[in-house]
Amino acid sequence: MYLSEELIPRRWYNILPDLPKPLPPPINPQTGEPISPQDLSILFPKEILEQELSLNTFIDIPDEVIEIYRLWRPTPLIRAKRFEKLLKTPAKIFFKYEGISPTGSHKVNTSVPQAFYNIREGVERLTTETGAGQWGSALAFATKIYGVRLTVYMVKVSYYQKPYRKTLMKLWGAEVIPSPSERTSFGKRILEEDPNNPGSLGIAISEAIEDAVTHEDTKYSLGSVLNHVILHQTVIGLEAIKQMELLDQTPDYVIGCVGGGSNFAGLAFPFYRLKKKGLLPSLKIIAAESTASPSLTYGDYRYDYGDTAGMTPKLKMHTLGHKHVPAPIHAGGLRYHGAAPTVSLLREEGFIEARAYNQLEVFKVAKLFAETEGIVPAPETAHAIKAAYDIALDAKRHGEEKTILFNFSGHGLLDLQAYEEYIEDKLQPYEYNSG
Amino acid sequence: MYLSEELIPRRWYNILPDLPKPLPPPINPQTGEPISPQDLSILFPKEILEQELSLNTFIDIPDEVIEIYRLWRPTPLIRAKRFEKLLKTPAKIFFKYEGISPTGSHKVNTSVPQAFYNIREGVERLTTETGAGQWGSALAFATKIYGVRLTVYMVKVSYYQKPYRKTLMKLWGAEVIPSPSERTSFGKRILEEDPNNPGSLGIAISEAIEDAVTHEDTKYSLGSVLNHVILHQTVIGLEAIKQMELLDQTPDYVIGCVGGGSNFAGLAFPFYRLKKKGLLPSLKIIAAESTASPSLTYGDYRYDYGDTAGMTPKLKMHTLGHKHVPAPIHAGGLRYHGAAPTVSLLREEGFIEARAYNQLEVFKVAKLFAETEGIVPAPETAHAIKAAYDIALDAKRHGEEKTILFNFSGHGLLDLQAYEEYIEDKLQPYEYNSG
Repeated sequence: MYLSEELIPRRWYNILPDLPKPLPPPINPQTGEPISPQDLSILFPKEILEQELSLNTFIDIPDEVIEIYRLWRPTPLIRAKRFEKLLKTPAKIFFKYEGISPTGSHKVNTSVPQAFYNIREGVERLTTETGAGQWGSALAFATKIYGVRLTVYMVKVSYYQKPYRKTLMKLWGAEVIPSPSERTSFGKRILEEDPNNPGSLGIAISEAIEDAVTHEDTKYSLGSVLNHVILHQTVIGLEAIKQMELLDQTPDYVIGCVGGGSNFAGLAFPFYRLKKKGLLPSLKIIAAESTASPSLTYGDYRYDYGDTAGMTPKLKMHTLGHKHVPAPIHAGGLRYHGAAPTVSLLREEGFIEARAYNQLEVFKVAKLFAETEGIVPAPETAHAIKAAYDIALDAKRHGEEKTILFNFSGHGLLDLQAYEEYIEDKLQPYEYNSG
Repeated sequence: MYLSEELIPRRWYNILPDLPKPLPPPINPQTGEPISPQDLSILFPKEILEQELSLNTFIDIPDEVIEIYRLWRPTPLIRAKRFEKLLKTPAKIFFKYEGISPTGSHKVNTSVPQAFYNIREGVERLTTETGAGQWGSALAFATKIYGVRLTVYMVKVSYYQKPYRKTLMKLWGAEVIPSPSERTSFGKRILEEDPNNPGSLGIAISEAIEDAVTHEDTKYSLGSVLNHVILHQTVIGLEAIKQMELLDQTPDYVIGCVGGGSNFAGLAFPFYRLKKKGLLPSLKIIAAESTASPSLTYGDYRYDYGDTAGMTPKLKMHTLGHKHVPAPIHAGGLRYHGAAPTVSLLREEGFIEARAYNQLEVFKVAKLFAETEGIVPAPETAHAIKAAYDIALDAKRHGEEKTILFNFSGHGLLDLQAYEEYIEDKLQPYEYNSG
């Protein structure tokens, strides 16, 4: 392993100009017309909106953001030799280890620039939603760094069942509110109907957005799906390309788990660019999903709402329908009903292959990885490892020396309850029923 | 930051031949005579006993151990620039980040070679004790790697209050038993007297030792205090010396937190060697303790038992008395009544300065560190950071450009309950009352 600060990219990679087709725009459900940047300016700062729609292939990373990236970047690119040995595979398995970040996942790659652009444009407070708390803790860290106030609407059931990430958010100065709450008219309405409503990500999104649009100097921040979020995550793939070159390796497979799609795209899009330029002709890009929400594997490619409540613009994406109720798997980050429009377009055009796994087969592989490589994977990450595992065993059957690279999006030290249930044989697989 | 596998040492540093005086031997409480290696061979394999008493300055690290060290070593040596900035100090603060290891602490540096030597000598099962679980999880990882069975006696109150590290141990195949237990005659006796006994490290040590001595092919493993344990931990300091050289830095202060003393000595002893050779004349070595068990700061230097129950050989060390009942601080690793004999000797001879801190002032600094550097420190590690913090502010007052290096022995992601209590203002300081 070899890490030097020169490996940290100075520019993010923006896929929009390299897409095989123009990206269908978000649509206003009322008018049926494309959303204009003005429509979104109440939610996002100018710089973020420009990045959302930019057609520049590369966008400079501000020095103030690089200074913070330095706290954990470049992240290691590691060869899983002992895992390979266990599988007796001729394949080489590499992983990009994003788990060493302050909050233990890739989410800080975008929370930091988002907080920076907001404070630079005078925004004093941000709102967001969080389920298990990965995104909430990542944004709490970033807002503490730059001195922005943060209000996090945390799905109530997680608020009480997963106290650790809540503590992380509070440690970094965030105000954490169990959702549904009395803070918003939408939350009040939900509580009037059902005082014991356990909450959902859809409800939390609606509360965070209402809070932002009804307060001066307050804007909203999102942790996945949109182009500017994925843009910031491309530091993962840009670093990985340089690191694979240093190791004189060429990947045949690039793999990431997909919820909204940001860690997957963060690794895969820079490699997609090389493939498009004819530099990686044999490269296959694999999206590893959960059978709880296999939008890319089984979903339709159509316009749908981004949230459960149906309050956001409609996005053209692979979706199971915004009313899809995912099974209660431990990989909370993979329970989203849709996938990022950019990822969906590439899937539709045949540049991405999707595979869905149930959490039982996933935890089996995660345990083998922890036993050989020593790192306990987050349940989400374990889906990517399962895909790498299957491909490595396939390479063994065919005696092929394939080179596999997957994104280790986060560690599982705050998800050990899930492993406890797996060890105690209490996990349900939750297969997808396409009905 | 710059990491290359060439930085991993090929030999451990053994301080015994470099001590200013011969180390007083362990004594058999019955006979009052020094313990012979034979007396201990029922507990430890031959190789470990040789290392315990060796007078060679360097001892080769087996290739099979280096192969596993590679999973997380070399560990990063990081400059805490943003923490320095917050303190507005002219001092430079560096830390050796052991928290990136599989179990999140330095403990695996010795659990791996201990498991290796045992399996090589045909030992099929190991026993040990653990409090909060740092040591138990580190040994569980190592025994899983080499295929040794492991039985961990875990202090009962921690077993039920701190489930996460128990899950880690089970994930790596260890048998975890709440202590006191029905497994040993000592445990049975305790339970007869008090069925609700919450357990203690002393009781767990006694059960683990009894289990080892009463079973064929079973030996015992210890996570601190003894010389072979500290020997294995010197990879920390040996790497840090090379890394400081690469950065062209010379430390004025080397700091570690002290429970039994293994992470402190692992960093400090290789630097002590350089000082002894006249290479670091200005170097000060600081032991950061808790006011709950300030053995080096306030203890006597005398022979005392290693365990609470008084079943081990007597060791010449700084001790508060083996019956000392430490306050229930969150830094479980700093609640030991004594300190390693080698560390104690150097303290007695004036080569080490000791400072004790209460957990309130410690968590205050830990929070500042997490806010600036992004890494949440283990409560134990936070004591070392508090010492660095005080020295950096002192350098500021005197306008001195001091260079400080501390050992970041572990992260606090499995100790967030402690931070929750700090944030909610529920922590007691627990000052030491020498009266």
